[in-house]
Amino acid sequence: MIQKEKRILMHVGPVNILDRILYAGLKNNVGFTSPEFVQAFQFSLKKIRELFQVDKTYQPFIIPGGGTSAMESVTSLLKEGEKVLVVTNGVFGDRWINIFKKYPVQVNVLKAEPGYYVEPETVEKEVKREKYKLVTFTHVETSTGVRQPIRESVKAVRDYVDLVVVDGVSSVGAEEVKAKDWNVDVYLTASQKAIGVPPGMGLLVLSSNAIEKLKEEKSVAGYYLDLRNWLPVMTNMEDGKASYFSTPPVHTILMLAEALKIIIDEEGLDNRIKRHEKIAGAIRAGVEGMGLDIVARKPEAYSNTVTGVLVKKVNAGNVLSEVISEGIELAPGVHPALQGKYFRIGHMGWVTENDAISTIASIERALKRLGEDIKLGEGVKATQLYLAK
Amino acid sequence: MIQKEKRILMHVGPVNILDRILYAGLKNNVGFTSPEFVQAFQFSLKKIRELFQVDKTYQPFIIPGGGTSAMESVTSLLKEGEKVLVVTNGVFGDRWINIFKKYPVQVNVLKAEPGYYVEPETVEKEVKREKYKLVTFTHVETSTGVRQPIRESVKAVRDYVDLVVVDGVSSVGAEEVKAKDWNVDVYLTASQKAIGVPPGMGLLVLSSNAIEKLKEEKSVAGYYLDLRNWLPVMTNMEDGKASYFSTPPVHTILMLAEALKIIIDEEGLDNRIKRHEKIAGAIRAGVEGMGLDIVARKPEAYSNTVTGVLVKKVNAGNVLSEVISEGIELAPGVHPALQGKYFRIGHMGWVTENDAISTIASIERALKRLGEDIKLGEGVKATQLYLAK
Amino acid sequence: MIQKEKRILMHVGPVNILDRILYAGLKNNVGFTSPEFVQAFQFSLKKIRELFQVDKTYQPFIIPGGGTSAMESVTSLLKEGEKVLVVTNGVFGDRWINIFKKYPVQVNVLKAEPGYYVEPETVEKEVKREKYKLVTFTHVETSTGVRQPIRESVKAVRDYVDLVVVDGVSSVGAEEVKAKDWNVDVYLTASQKAIGVPPGMGLLVLSSNAIEKLKEEKSVAGYYLDLRNWLPVMTNMEDGKASYFSTPPVHTILMLAEALKIIIDEEGLDNRIKRHEKIAGAIRAGVEGMGLDIVARKPEAYSNTVTGVLVKKVNAGNVLSEVISEGIELAPGVHPALQGKYFRIGHMGWVTENDAISTIASIERALKRLGEDIKLGEGVKATQLYLAK
Amino acid sequence: MIQKEKRILMHVGPVNILDRILYAGLKNNVGFTSPEFVQAFQFSLKKIRELFQVDKTYQPFIIPGGGTSAMESVTSLLKEGEKVLVVTNGVFGDRWINIFKKYPVQVNVLKAEPGYYVEPETVEKEVKREKYKLVTFTHVETSTGVRQPIRESVKAVRDYVDLVVVDGVSSVGAEEVKAKDWNVDVYLTASQKAIGVPPGMGLLVLSSNAIEKLKEEKSVAGYYLDLRNWLPVMTNMEDGKASYFSTPPVHTILMLAEALKIIIDEEGLDNRIKRHEKIAGAIRAGVEGMGLDIVARKPEAYSNTVTGVLVKKVNAGNVLSEVISEGIELAPGVHPALQGKYFRIGHMGWVTENDAISTIASIERALKRLGEDIKLGEGVKATQLYLAK
Repeated sequence: MIQKEKRILMHVGPVNILDRILYAGLKNNVGFTSPEFVQAFQFSLKKIRELFQVDKTYQPFIIPGGGTSAMESVTSLLKEGEKVLVVTNGVFGDRWINIFKKYPVQVNVLKAEPGYYVEPETVEKEVKREKYKLVTFTHVETSTGVRQPIRESVKAVRDYVDLVVVDGVSSVGAEEVKAKDWNVDVYLTASQKAIGVPPGMGLLVLSSNAIEKLKEEKSVAGYYLDLRNWLPVMTNMEDGKASYFSTPPVHTILMLAEALKIIIDEEGLDNRIKRHEKIAGAIRAGVEGMGLDIVARKPEAYSNTVTGVLVKKVNAGNVLSEVISEGIELAPGVHPALQGKYFRIGHMGWVTENDAISTIASIERALKRLGEDIKLGEGVKATQLYLAK
Repeated sequence: MIQKEKRILMHVGPVNILDRILYAGLKNNVGFTSPEFVQAFQFSLKKIRELFQVDKTYQPFIIPGGGTSAMESVTSLLKEGEKVLVVTNGVFGDRWINIFKKYPVQVNVLKAEPGYYVEPETVEKEVKREKYKLVTFTHVETSTGVRQPIRESVKAVRDYVDLVVVDGVSSVGAEEVKAKDWNVDVYLTASQKAIGVPPGMGLLVLSSNAIEKLKEEKSVAGYYLDLRNWLPVMTNMEDGKASYFSTPPVHTILMLAEALKIIIDEEGLDNRIKRHEKIAGAIRAGVEGMGLDIVARKPEAYSNTVTGVLVKKVNAGNVLSEVISEGIELAPGVHPALQGKYFRIGHMGWVTENDAISTIASIERALKRLGEDIKLGEGVKATQLYLAK
Repeated sequence: MIQKEKRILMHVGPVNILDRILYAGLKNNVGFTSPEFVQAFQFSLKKIRELFQVDKTYQPFIIPGGGTSAMESVTSLLKEGEKVLVVTNGVFGDRWINIFKKYPVQVNVLKAEPGYYVEPETVEKEVKREKYKLVTFTHVETSTGVRQPIRESVKAVRDYVDLVVVDGVSSVGAEEVKAKDWNVDVYLTASQKAIGVPPGMGLLVLSSNAIEKLKEEKSVAGYYLDLRNWLPVMTNMEDGKASYFSTPPVHTILMLAEALKIIIDEEGLDNRIKRHEKIAGAIRAGVEGMGLDIVARKPEAYSNTVTGVLVKKVNAGNVLSEVISEGIELAPGVHPALQGKYFRIGHMGWVTENDAISTIASIERALKRLGEDIKLGEGVKATQLYLAK
Repeated sequence: MIQKEKRILMHVGPVNILDRILYAGLKNNVGFTSPEFVQAFQFSLKKIRELFQVDKTYQPFIIPGGGTSAMESVTSLLKEGEKVLVVTNGVFGDRWINIFKKYPVQVNVLKAEPGYYVEPETVEKEVKREKYKLVTFTHVETSTGVRQPIRESVKAVRDYVDLVVVDGVSSVGAEEVKAKDWNVDVYLTASQKAIGVPPGMGLLVLSSNAIEKLKEEKSVAGYYLDLRNWLPVMTNMEDGKASYFSTPPVHTILMLAEALKIIIDEEGLDNRIKRHEKIAGAIRAGVEGMGLDIVARKPEAYSNTVTGVLVKKVNAGNVLSEVISEGIELAPGVHPALQGKYFRIGHMGWVTENDAISTIASIERALKRLGEDIKLGEGVKATQLYLAK
């Protein structure tokens, strides 16, 4: 029972949250005009620029909701009839299609098999073949853990489309992201992923090219997710002036500020990415050490944040509840093509070496008990040897 | 400095939050599939029915965002070309117009002068004059504190329109609300108002008539705020099954469950409404006792949650910062027609008699210091005599 | 019910604690050798010097327990057969007698009537009459709220006794305390009083004269409260080195450090004393405004921290529960000579003007309901006029 | 840096505290007369009986301080000149000697070599040889992790001495304790050990035989630690009546109540002891798996709560800081006879299988880096195989 109560959340978001971050939201008397809040918002906007590696030419946004609402807010940049290309490696790549289909724009799609990504050359061919206003990529596809080579992908299309959009929901804060160097127009993430804050907000940075679009009066966007409505709030807040469009999640933003302080000012973004890299490697070593396969089919597709694990004999669904009793909560597999065949280990946010070793040890014990064909003790030993390198 | 740190937030949302509610969100390892979360969501849905006074024929929704996103989600019920009537008494009534204008529907408007509401007979006349698919009311107009006589207003239109929608953002949890008895199709509120939870969510109940509309495939709505996408999450969660459309604000929902437990099971909804009534009366007694006028022009328009206060000599903007130094944070006036002439006292959520007396005393001292023409000591005495009745 | 839940603790300790201070103790993994703890302890020792207005010639101590254990630790300075004089104005002055009687020392007593203090001249006469090793004073007698003129009292005896000890339990942090200037050998307080930390610790400063006594091997003290055992912990900790005698209340010390940071570095000790003075004055104005008398019989005996209030018709015991239902928790009267005739208002720690006005208003309403003969509304008005001065 | 911030406290007290317990103390307005506090105190007293496995014939005490003050309070049962026997296996057994030497009683001592305990027969021989009023045992010697076979030891002396006292500081809540069945007169522990609460309190149960002693007026005890002063507080509090002798650590007692609720009502005492047994076994398996020796020289002396680990080449002091950088905080060795040769792993309170595996893995990596001669990966594998049994 204590094991369950203290369980480690190796999920894909929300993830385990550092107590300091939770406690930063413990304010019973802070409103949206309160100085503490304005200060936290202002600070967060500045630090978001560092998080996405952009400068003053980019405009950061913090909008209520999460990854999906942040994605949908991209409709603020589109006009009726415009053509968009969606490059998708799984469920969350497909989500762009579902969003755009609700609007009067044209959508084309390039889709990869599960475990693979769409090759940059394939995208390049398509954007040369047809003129697109906007193309979307998914940096890390949360449903499979596959990482798109995003620098190369953006490079391949940059000269042929007006707007390049990257969903960095499972990458920002854990993978290398250089929105300005790579000349991305919209890079976005959500608070509950690799930056390790409770859910409730999407974060975006927009290039000056994208901001220009907001100056045009018309777009296909609705009201709440029209970035035009949020833009003056962002610029005022960055100037330290309380500003209102619709009530923001005040307490979650207080926590966001604390998280960004830790990420940028205390841990350092480079150290953070290296930590994620090491933990991810240790977890994959453990998975392979116990004798199981990874959903991402080749090392170039491995991500720092999510590892899909294929099971052989047991039903993947049963693994989750068995592992919870060992004190680890994992994420279910959600890719329809692999139903019941895999589960996901989320390893992002504030994940440590202790979390890695506990996760592999717990999975081993749970799988053994369920009758899966694994080498008990070898996974955890492999993780340990990897960490000791 | 201590006075400022301990200040009481007499704002219009977020308001002072009971510590127990904040602490209910202190979970560093709860994800959207975790049993604690599913349980809190399930519990909240059941209690929301009691909060809005509806039964199983109504479907409750908890969606990320706030009041505005909840309002916009009503577009899920509308098809291209349909006609809507907006009845507005101020800034937040007008917001319906801004929302609907983004969609291919027709909007007509009935508007009241600041301090007044649109008379039910006026609305009745209009819905008889022209056929509307949907009409919206604002129960309490947050910008002025004016309360619409909602029971009578709904009655006046009920037979003539298909869908009746009430924005209960500043009323639910503090004013009498009987969504089913009054036969309202959509009644909505936001977490940070009279139910006293941090911001981040809109709450709605939909009548079976409204739910029928969601079964039709088409609507003008976008993706994130299309209630069709959230409906299966709500029904699954009410059955105790983890379900996903887009990551909900997990921690805020844990707090919501705690708040609803207190509201419904501990304080009792009737007691809560009576508490709000008493505090509101005491605050108005104090305002009048010190010699100032209230924005709402007649007692029938007084609300339990917001009181607009007109100043005579001083600039209303200066009052806020002066009162903060006394340990009370108020809300600015936002109605464009009364710019600089009034401020707002929010008195909702967990507000007590001690808060009332402190608020009036602080306003008195601040106004005196600013040179406003008030009777020092008489406001606080009037509040005290009102409370002692 | 909400009023009760949010009640303001106008008690004599523990008192209302600033949330920031409580949150500073929220550490689930800090032990007595952890760097965070050593740092907090070190910081606290340094700030305690400022709190008592002493320099490096004085040695601060933080020992587990509270006021009583701190008092008893003074036995570390006494040898068998030595003679002590206790100057007492009430229950807590008398406590010195109870302590010393347990040890092989001789105790003489000077006692004041309730509401009065022992005049400095009376004490001077006694120490001239007989040779004492040690004399104890109580700065503010918690049981009645009577303040001893401590500067004058110490001056009156200083030349005639070896050790002067002051119980500053209800004064340190709220009244002027100048341990070094006044040449006091032991000044002590407890964490839960005017410095507003949870209970669990006594704080003391010892002059070099007193520290010399600790170098002698023998004293009448026991083991746990023998300051000899704690001295090396204090000096090591001040040097930043983890050190152990018996496990300290780690989390309460983390909170102590936060409180001292606020007191010394943020609010400032002078501002803090002025705040207490103002609130105390406002509360006494309210008490007299409603027509009641104060236990301390003359203004020179009024304290900044505790006000005893005499009732006329009602039983004082009934007042407490009635006032709790108004959202204020007071302290019972405990002086045996005034049983049932008075209650105490504690106004120390983080008390604000809002707390003062709420307290007086609540007492008025409660007393009116109980049938006490008071002028409803006049107390709260008097408090308001006092605050507005 | 994150690894350090999230470190697991494998110390001997305070230990890692369950967040729920910390949060139970988050009350900014609870005083020692507040109903919440009286209720928590009352509940704790009742549950302490279950914790020590005694019935109504035993009297539980909660007194401020910790293990040492609880030990010293036993002087309340002794009169001048009485003879006591101290049975000691290390530093904390010796502490009894230091305490008693401060009082006018006679002390004899039986002492074991480090790693061993005094055999019950040896004690039996001594109490037959000479008449003792009181004999003390240490259930688990915290300095070495050696467990005394307490049932047999008490049995061996029971018929020959008046009072049998057991220091259960590192055992109660983690080892089998049956104070009544074994006919122990005083069994005591401290809040920060195996019951996993912050430090600040000692807990004791006294047999009716011991309580009888308190009815006699005289004892050698001082004032603060004289159980006579605390007895009426305990009986009143158990009856639900606020009662005062000296201010108790209110917030820590709120946490104690939460901990006891979890221990007794949720986890169950038997499950808790089994959990400790399993974790202790897994940790010893890991220590031996990597090739190191344990301080306790034979399996009968192994405890469920503390494991001393002997190092071969490296200085034990260096291990601690190296392991902290891996995210685990251990306790230093403190037995003077083994200075620099061992460190201690505390595994009590809320310790889980994940903590065990992380601890062994971290120690392995740290020792490897320091150049100790260990088999990297074999310790963690041995722990895993032990846990999977």
